[in-house]
Amino acid sequence: MLFFTQCFGAVLDLIHLRFQHYKAKRVFSAAGQLVCVVNPTHSLKYAPTRCAAGQASTEQGILPPCHHHEAVHDPQLVPCTCPLFSCPWEGHLEVVVSHLRQTHRINILQGAEIVFLATDMHLPAPTDWIIVHSCLGHQFLLVLRKQEKYEGHPQFFATMMLIGTPTQADNFTYRLELNRNQRRLKWEATPRSILECVDSVISDGDCLVLNTSLAQLFSDNGSLAIGIAITTSKVHSSEAEM
Amino acid sequence: MLFFTQCFGAVLDLIHLRFQHYKAKRVFSAAGQLVCVVNPTHSLKYAPTRCAAGQASTEQGILPPCHHHEAVHDPQLVPCTCPLFSCPWEGHLEVVVSHLRQTHRINILQGAEIVFLATDMHLPAPTDWIIVHSCLGHQFLLVLRKQEKYEGHPQFFATMMLIGTPTQADNFTYRLELNRNQRRLKWEATPRSILECVDSVISDGDCLVLNTSLAQLFSDNGSLAIGIAITTSKVHSSEAEM
Repeated sequence: MLFFTQCFGAVLDLIHLRFQHYKAKRVFSAAGQLVCVVNPTHSLKYAPTRCAAGQASTEQGILPPCHHHEAVHDPQLVPCTCPLFSCPWEGHLEVVVSHLRQTHRINILQGAEIVFLATDMHLPAPTDWIIVHSCLGHQFLLVLRKQEKYEGHPQFFATMMLIGTPTQADNFTYRLELNRNQRRLKWEATPRSILECVDSVISDGDCLVLNTSLAQLFSDNGSLAIGIAITTSKVHSSEAEM
Repeated sequence: MLFFTQCFGAVLDLIHLRFQHYKAKRVFSAAGQLVCVVNPTHSLKYAPTRCAAGQASTEQGILPPCHHHEAVHDPQLVPCTCPLFSCPWEGHLEVVVSHLRQTHRINILQGAEIVFLATDMHLPAPTDWIIVHSCLGHQFLLVLRKQEKYEGHPQFFATMMLIGTPTQADNFTYRLELNRNQRRLKWEATPRSILECVDSVISDGDCLVLNTSLAQLFSDNGSLAIGIAITTSKVHSSEAEM
């Protein structure tokens, strides 16, 4: 066991070392896996100056108002899916990714299995870490959010949304995995469609939820590595195993 | 996928049906796995009338006083490890299990993989569900606790403790798995020794933590099924996979 623990430690060291040396290049490969360094963005949507009422209701565990559906006038069009900003853009589902990339500068990462390395976990809530993950012919939005549901007690919420319809989303399973210090936490679920509201998924708690203490246990030097894998839903064939 | 989802549903139905028919017999087998129905016990240790100061500190996220170590006078003796009561008993490690069984009527379950079926999840905090799990030549105490770290927001905490020394505990890995509604949550860790305080493990959050909303997603008819597996620590050889 010691040997493999050391191996895993070496992988983390490698990640850290390469992170130090290639800060300019935000995507690199460690131990055969693509690692994407994701910087936090302070969420303007929940900033007190812009949306004080929304924040108050969130802290009390009530669903925040979902701005996405309110903005849709033409059913053929979808609003901007970026959870960071109250963006007035709307367009067809096929062009959501290019909007996210061009307007909100969200990185797109290719590969069935990647490592999402969220930096600066200590930053105060509300903060989001976001990438688009492209695999199996589709794009998925990964959102890690630090939010205070209970005042003074920030939590971390991580979920994946398919940039597609709910019917398409049912064909996939995503897995988020944390692995450090002889502890492992895995969350597997069917992704929601981006047509649903990411805020309500997080408010419902239907995602990977971490208390600050657990997030610290899995963090290394202020960064949290989340292993991400997406498969077609055959994975759930093992549900009956339990 | 539908077929296997139905299979899993059938297994849950079987569990429920047998639970209805054999309420007197609290342990039964479903789909080849041993299922232990565990009834809740209202924790007297945290009851406001007995320990108001302790509860207040817990709600603020501060470690509650651990009564175990305070009571030890002879280093050869260990105090009662039952987290339910402030029990004055102390004795040698080898007789802890028989004390738990005889005095606190805690069930002992044999088998490498079992299903822990906690009933009445709706009961108010503080509430504990406890069994002793016997496998690989050792006994492990499984504690599921509903507790309010933040006032008005109960959470569920699940952990396993080896009834043995910390050195012995390092040789094992335990896995707790929730699996329902196309969602799966797995927690793997090295068990702590019962010589450490279960209260501090839970206060540190170094265990499986569930918000009420997640617990509801994984519950069926007010009962939460937790799959439990214990292995020797070779499991961690796959740490480098991530």
